Amino acid sequence: MVYFNCDYTEGCHPKILERLSETNMLQTAGYGEDEICASARAKIRAACGREDVDVHFLVGGTQANATVIAAALRPHQGALCAATGHINVHETGAVEATGHKALPLPATADGKICAAQVEAAYEAHVNDASFEHMVQPKLVYISQPTENGGLYSKAELTALHTVCARCGLYLFVDGARLGYGLAAPENDVSLGDLCALADVFYIGGTKVGALFGEAVVIVNPELKVDFRYHIKQRGGMLAKGRLLGIQFDVLFTDGLYFAISRKAVAQARRIADACRAAGCTFFAESPTNQQFPIFPDKALEKLAGKYVWSHWARVDATHSAIRLCTSWATTDENVDALCADIADALR
Amino acid sequence: MVYFNCDYTEGCHPKILERLSETNMLQTAGYGEDEICASARAKIRAACGREDVDVHFLVGGTQANATVIAAALRPHQGALCAATGHINVHETGAVEATGHKALPLPATADGKICAAQVEAAYEAHVNDASFEHMVQPKLVYISQPTENGGLYSKAELTALHTVCARCGLYLFVDGARLGYGLAAPENDVSLGDLCALADVFYIGGTKVGALFGEAVVIVNPELKVDFRYHIKQRGGMLAKGRLLGIQFDVLFTDGLYFAISRKAVAQARRIADACRAAGCTFFAESPTNQQFPIFPDKALEKLAGKYVWSHWARVDATHSAIRLCTSWATTDENVDALCADIADALR
Amino acid sequence: MVYFNCDYTEGCHPKILERLSETNMLQTAGYGEDEICASARAKIRAACGREDVDVHFLVGGTQANATVIAAALRPHQGALCAATGHINVHETGAVEATGHKALPLPATADGKICAAQVEAAYEAHVNDASFEHMVQPKLVYISQPTENGGLYSKAELTALHTVCARCGLYLFVDGARLGYGLAAPENDVSLGDLCALADVFYIGGTKVGALFGEAVVIVNPELKVDFRYHIKQRGGMLAKGRLLGIQFDVLFTDGLYFAISRKAVAQARRIADACRAAGCTFFAESPTNQQFPIFPDKALEKLAGKYVWSHWARVDATHSAIRLCTSWATTDENVDALCADIADALR
Amino acid sequence: MVYFNCDYTEGCHPKILERLSETNMLQTAGYGEDEICASARAKIRAACGREDVDVHFLVGGTQANATVIAAALRPHQGALCAATGHINVHETGAVEATGHKALPLPATADGKICAAQVEAAYEAHVNDASFEHMVQPKLVYISQPTENGGLYSKAELTALHTVCARCGLYLFVDGARLGYGLAAPENDVSLGDLCALADVFYIGGTKVGALFGEAVVIVNPELKVDFRYHIKQRGGMLAKGRLLGIQFDVLFTDGLYFAISRKAVAQARRIADACRAAGCTFFAESPTNQQFPIFPDKALEKLAGKYVWSHWARVDATHSAIRLCTSWATTDENVDALCADIADALR
Repeated sequence: MVYFNCDYTEGCHPKILERLSETNMLQTAGYGEDEICASARAKIRAACGREDVDVHFLVGGTQANATVIAAALRPHQGALCAATGHINVHETGAVEATGHKALPLPATADGKICAAQVEAAYEAHVNDASFEHMVQPKLVYISQPTENGGLYSKAELTALHTVCARCGLYLFVDGARLGYGLAAPENDVSLGDLCALADVFYIGGTKVGALFGEAVVIVNPELKVDFRYHIKQRGGMLAKGRLLGIQFDVLFTDGLYFAISRKAVAQARRIADACRAAGCTFFAESPTNQQFPIFPDKALEKLAGKYVWSHWARVDATHSAIRLCTSWATTDENVDALCADIADALR
Repeated sequence: MVYFNCDYTEGCHPKILERLSETNMLQTAGYGEDEICASARAKIRAACGREDVDVHFLVGGTQANATVIAAALRPHQGALCAATGHINVHETGAVEATGHKALPLPATADGKICAAQVEAAYEAHVNDASFEHMVQPKLVYISQPTENGGLYSKAELTALHTVCARCGLYLFVDGARLGYGLAAPENDVSLGDLCALADVFYIGGTKVGALFGEAVVIVNPELKVDFRYHIKQRGGMLAKGRLLGIQFDVLFTDGLYFAISRKAVAQARRIADACRAAGCTFFAESPTNQQFPIFPDKALEKLAGKYVWSHWARVDATHSAIRLCTSWATTDENVDALCADIADALR
Repeated sequence: MVYFNCDYTEGCHPKILERLSETNMLQTAGYGEDEICASARAKIRAACGREDVDVHFLVGGTQANATVIAAALRPHQGALCAATGHINVHETGAVEATGHKALPLPATADGKICAAQVEAAYEAHVNDASFEHMVQPKLVYISQPTENGGLYSKAELTALHTVCARCGLYLFVDGARLGYGLAAPENDVSLGDLCALADVFYIGGTKVGALFGEAVVIVNPELKVDFRYHIKQRGGMLAKGRLLGIQFDVLFTDGLYFAISRKAVAQARRIADACRAAGCTFFAESPTNQQFPIFPDKALEKLAGKYVWSHWARVDATHSAIRLCTSWATTDENVDALCADIADALR
Repeated sequence: MVYFNCDYTEGCHPKILERLSETNMLQTAGYGEDEICASARAKIRAACGREDVDVHFLVGGTQANATVIAAALRPHQGALCAATGHINVHETGAVEATGHKALPLPATADGKICAAQVEAAYEAHVNDASFEHMVQPKLVYISQPTENGGLYSKAELTALHTVCARCGLYLFVDGARLGYGLAAPENDVSLGDLCALADVFYIGGTKVGALFGEAVVIVNPELKVDFRYHIKQRGGMLAKGRLLGIQFDVLFTDGLYFAISRKAVAQARRIADACRAAGCTFFAESPTNQQFPIFPDKALEKLAGKYVWSHWARVDATHSAIRLCTSWATTDENVDALCADIADALR
């Protein structure tokens, strides 16, 4: 079986394993205060073109989301997000477990929300006579790219930034798959843009070449204060913090993070093209490593013996939307085979 | 100005004030362990026809909701509710502040959800491959009557009960306005039925004759364990707990709770009839003390100098839905005047 | 049986009942936004000699403590307090339930902590290499008078204030029995001093003449922001908020709060004198309405048929410390009788 | 500089790196549901001699502690622990952040609490008239070995187990350094004994050969229910869960976990012997990989250029207690050198 169901089926980029081996018997300080973490932080700052941002390494996305949101909000405040946002649907209520309500807004098919929605939600709150009886919106959570493969343009992010600034809201960008977003040909948002437009965001490692790990970049000085306490409290401070430093140091050396992301996106586009050529339509358009083609169930039956994908949605009595993912680890051979088999299955 | 905007604009039924005065210098045990609370509990048990239920007195509805839900759920569990449910919209995230997610379901115009929705939500959860990544539904929260004046029939409650029992869910009924629901001519649900169909519910005092206070009735033995600890932890255990006992003892003596509720509902129906006679339609049908007529804005301008109501929703460019409430304290004179003025305003 | 076990065995001062009756059918706005609450706030500001403080009315002490502390702290911060402090021992973990650790310091016999202890705890934290692995002290919680009858002098409070200011800590004074502290002959701390020295404190009503209620006075502007949201979230916002306003308005009219407190303290001192005259020593010295004499168990046996007190501590095989409380409601007759019976029992 | 300051200064046992490399491009299911995790679980069950225990892999100790405790307790319940216990002092209030109070008991110099203390705390609670105003003890948290190098004997654990069973308390054993405890010559407690005596415990990987990871073993069926939801909610469910499986699979193959622990303990004992021979006394006796000798400050000055240790406590004006740790990674050469230099420094 070949797995295209998600982007975390393999281990890590071989260069990370190499570096783990090279550094294995080195004695370092614990809890991320070692020189390798310092090097990784410096490289991420350089990639952002910003010396003033704080960089912290956390273990995973759910943890990063809950830690950032709990650190940013007071008890009566909540996080505006897409109804399909990861914090709203797939984190077992991790944000609520820190006491904060996710405030869902209707999302587009590709998982986005827009500045006008945020502004309307904010205005509805402050203009409601019962405003003190309602959770106060204070942070906007978006994913770039989204859980459904959507990509915010620079114009869209700028509009969100402008509304957030006007309304006193923090903008937090979940970048669990950020590499694949940055690498999309349609993308016009750089790391530097994210620093300019978001208050805090993270650069996903788990799905983009690392064994695990997310690099949280804090731009807004208010959110920098005491952040390491929060990491520790939420169980995210590894004793051997260097593990995270090593991984991001490798990924941000010689542009590896970007190179492997570009390759994965190109492969995903090849698969999408094969689907399109075979007559598929798409559940949501995605310029990233995730593709959501709609297949006749009969075609899926033919493919089922050889490939694994994620079921996404039932479209009608005879058609299903599925998710096919590539990653830094996807081989050309497997993509070739899948494209050919898709053509066959739909013939 | 005459207030019809809500059902908590006056103090309490005069008999409660009398009893407060009579008992004022009596020395009693604290924290609800006095003989007056015991008497009130006994009367509520008698009204329910159930000797086996536990009765606790809490200060208010938000507190009762958060205390019951936090006591009932484990950290990964959430509360299914109407999207318009009080816990979802008007408690400043009090339930989330205890760590639990409200899981909203689309509600009818009159604020109800149905057994089929609950079952579907439960099935969707258990059949999702990522179920452990999602909040587990464990409790169903409904209001009787609802925030929008809707009333569950015995058949509807029975259906909810049946689904909850099959799915291992607790059924929790917020009865902040329960008296007005019980008093509705259309109502076919008794306190005894609530004991049979719900795991826990409360009998609202704040809006039905008391200065404040809600009587939580726990039927399910699992939910009875250590409940007083939870009351204390959530700030609901009054040192002079007898205040709550006194109020419910008076309300449940000689059927006062029911009598004053019936009166209020009759008055609300008179107002509704006046609206209907004057040509109004209704935003939501309500058999209770809350009425939601739709008025031309011009008619509201005429009424505005004399009456206060709650704005409920803008219906179109020239019409608004408003909420008019009666309560145990509403006078016949004020209702007469309002009915006449409505007829005038719409002539 | 005559109860001297606590200061909440009766209802409320008769003038409060009168005012409740007079205002009962008045229609007012809800949630503390009525004109009676406004009047009560103005009177408390006047008593404090400070127009710039915010005044909020909460239902009880546990709720006031948890609400203030949760509003003031970020998730990684905790509250330094006496090991015997109410939040540490008698609130069922209400503060921890909001996510914050109580950081207990050893207390004196009469329940006090001192500035040097606070400073040492702060210094120990910031100088510990593992400081980020420990809860950050951010607030100092003291009770005035303490749970054990102790009273902070102005010099002691000033020292605490100075340390808190230097270390960036909030000083929060639980005044559940504040009236009895202000009324102690030894007291040299005024409401104005509390405004100058504390960031936030509350004036207890439940134990000092009211049916229930605590008036939270917020001095520090940082702590004022959005406080009403927190009250709502923690279940402390009464629909009929005027109940609290009425009570504090009466208590702060013509110095009633102070007059009834003085009377109660004088009665307590009479009891203490009777104990001392009969040969008792004291578990802790208290200038307030609580007295902690040590009795031979045999003497207690003689008193047991007629009086109720609180057992405080076993002192040795044949002696126990007990708590005797007076309140605004204690009658001279009962005090006379108790004093005589103490003399008899110890003869 | 040679680091003896803690047991997490290096990476992982080389066999783990080998296995990570071998399996790197293998495609597996996510979230710990892969075959390598299954194999690791089976090996741990075998090492425990118990087929009926549940085994879960978490990322770190703080996370494991908070996840287990939050899953086990209801909101009003707390965790009895040594005052020096990791949850009480070095986890930034992670347990309180889940809403639960740590209930500290005075510990011995080597960090232990005893059955009599637990029983006394339990009895004090249930016999206190205000029991509902206090956090209910429901779980006992101990560390084996303790943070201070102490080791519970089988008799001591059995006594704790007996008291817990009698009082309805869960016994939870933090085994962050469990390998080094099991390997101590004085130890008479096996993994099988832990299964018989504890309700839940964990086998530490981070400090015993792994890059990171703790294997939580749940014995009590009540605690097994839905545990994976809790792991997800607390941010502990790695997408590439196999990383944890791989590490524990290697550690529990051919007794590697035990072999490397024995070596580390033997080295620690060589260091302790050198200290003793040179005239040192000890702050706490420890049979494990942590040693707490007391040195003259002058001797420490001589060692400071070459070695790193943890400062533990100031003993008097001229002496300090330090912590020296060995681990699976400590080399004989470094131990030889340290022993010689200690002899020199104290000559």
